[in-house]
Amino acid sequence: MNNLKINTNLTIEIIGNFISNETARAGFTKAIVGVSGGIDSALSCFLTAQALGGKNVLAVRMPYKTSSQASYEDAQLVIDKTGVQSETISITNIADGLINQFPKMSNVRRGNIMARSRMIVLYDRSADFNGLVVGTGNKTEILLGYSTLYGDSACAFNPIGNLYKTQVRQLARAIGVPDRIINKAPTADLWPGQTDEEELGFTYAEVDKLLYLLIDERFTPGECAAAGFDKHFVDTVVKRVQRSHFKRIMPPIAMVNSRINSDDSLHLFHQ
Amino acid sequence: MNNLKINTNLTIEIIGNFISNETARAGFTKAIVGVSGGIDSALSCFLTAQALGGKNVLAVRMPYKTSSQASYEDAQLVIDKTGVQSETISITNIADGLINQFPKMSNVRRGNIMARSRMIVLYDRSADFNGLVVGTGNKTEILLGYSTLYGDSACAFNPIGNLYKTQVRQLARAIGVPDRIINKAPTADLWPGQTDEEELGFTYAEVDKLLYLLIDERFTPGECAAAGFDKHFVDTVVKRVQRSHFKRIMPPIAMVNSRINSDDSLHLFHQ
Repeated sequence: MNNLKINTNLTIEIIGNFISNETARAGFTKAIVGVSGGIDSALSCFLTAQALGGKNVLAVRMPYKTSSQASYEDAQLVIDKTGVQSETISITNIADGLINQFPKMSNVRRGNIMARSRMIVLYDRSADFNGLVVGTGNKTEILLGYSTLYGDSACAFNPIGNLYKTQVRQLARAIGVPDRIINKAPTADLWPGQTDEEELGFTYAEVDKLLYLLIDERFTPGECAAAGFDKHFVDTVVKRVQRSHFKRIMPPIAMVNSRINSDDSLHLFHQ
Repeated sequence: MNNLKINTNLTIEIIGNFISNETARAGFTKAIVGVSGGIDSALSCFLTAQALGGKNVLAVRMPYKTSSQASYEDAQLVIDKTGVQSETISITNIADGLINQFPKMSNVRRGNIMARSRMIVLYDRSADFNGLVVGTGNKTEILLGYSTLYGDSACAFNPIGNLYKTQVRQLARAIGVPDRIINKAPTADLWPGQTDEEELGFTYAEVDKLLYLLIDERFTPGECAAAGFDKHFVDTVVKRVQRSHFKRIMPPIAMVNSRINSDDSLHLFHQ
């Protein structure tokens, strides 16, 4: 269970190289990060600023009219600490352009519209700034499918996508993310008072230990139960991982021609 | 070169099975298609209606304020011919929610915002209708990267993504897409007067023959030139395929933990 502990210095070095390499490989020198005031985007912003230099990074705050002022101020802390460039673009008119057509829609639909509106803003700003969009989703979220497809999961590359939330906290502490951001309850800030752990029904500390056994150690669900995890909890998590599979792959294409690879163009890179 | 010719009956059958299987596999019975009035979305709508039944398909028209009335009417033809359900949702307020903040932005940025606004509408309507979003991108577009990432390329599955544009035309004719839609100049309708072929700088008929050699036959660029294609044209197309590679893969994730597969959860499907 202690295997969730990471060597923070080595991890920061590996991720820094990843960010530099991915950016250069695509022919870019700059990057752009949506900064929400939460720990994941804070860590991505710190890592990217360290790898590319603060002046080459644009942090974008994208509040909706119901977004909390505290989140906004926490995002400012990240901007100040990293020395990145920054912008604030409201998504209210974009999201409300659809929400107002269906005023009774559920909170989940509203939340997805907001996450996708932020994607639109980030990709548009990235075209203007000439920088790549940096991902901010962690491994726990990705495995649980706890993100909006084509919304907050959209990016050019993701420096923290192989770190469980517990590990994000370790790395955030090591790289200097302010304590206030590390210690507050994680939230997508999609409606007032929302917290991730209440919505999910379990804590990140619990689920990370289970996911580590299921994914990294390839335990069967039965072996996880034998290791002390509640059987119902194990089933719930396994089902979430299975049901969110579609979010982690490219959409399937009907195969009707002779060649059948998911990317038939790869050989053109080796000529 | 005649290898672009397809057996239309067989292809319709294969794709029909693909649509039924993908829909059922995800636990759905219904699907939703954005119908622009163009041939690609018309063909996807015909194939989906045939596979799932018209009443299980929702066609959504999503005009922007500058969209052409002719496109709107062509989309109505598709709705009438296939017997699907239909809705019209304007994207003007969504897209202008951002465009109005940067009124001098380029046509390309506007076009990307429109394509992504349509994605937001389709995914929101799909949550309400309880249907999967059907892709409408063809193989030519996908290989050339002639689409908006997280915009028109976003879908749950794509029935026509392995058909070159030339083959889309053959299949559209065979399945009964109205001639008016088949014969008009392909356009993304992102600004008045836009046509794909003018923007690309070559015709689909030309580029499909070249892509077939490069991709399906794995000819080298030199072999394509020897086969009679202009060397500059070959280079342009090869570069487009290479540069759009990122649109055909999931975003890379920095690998810092023990396991390194792109989907580490797959073994959970086989227990």
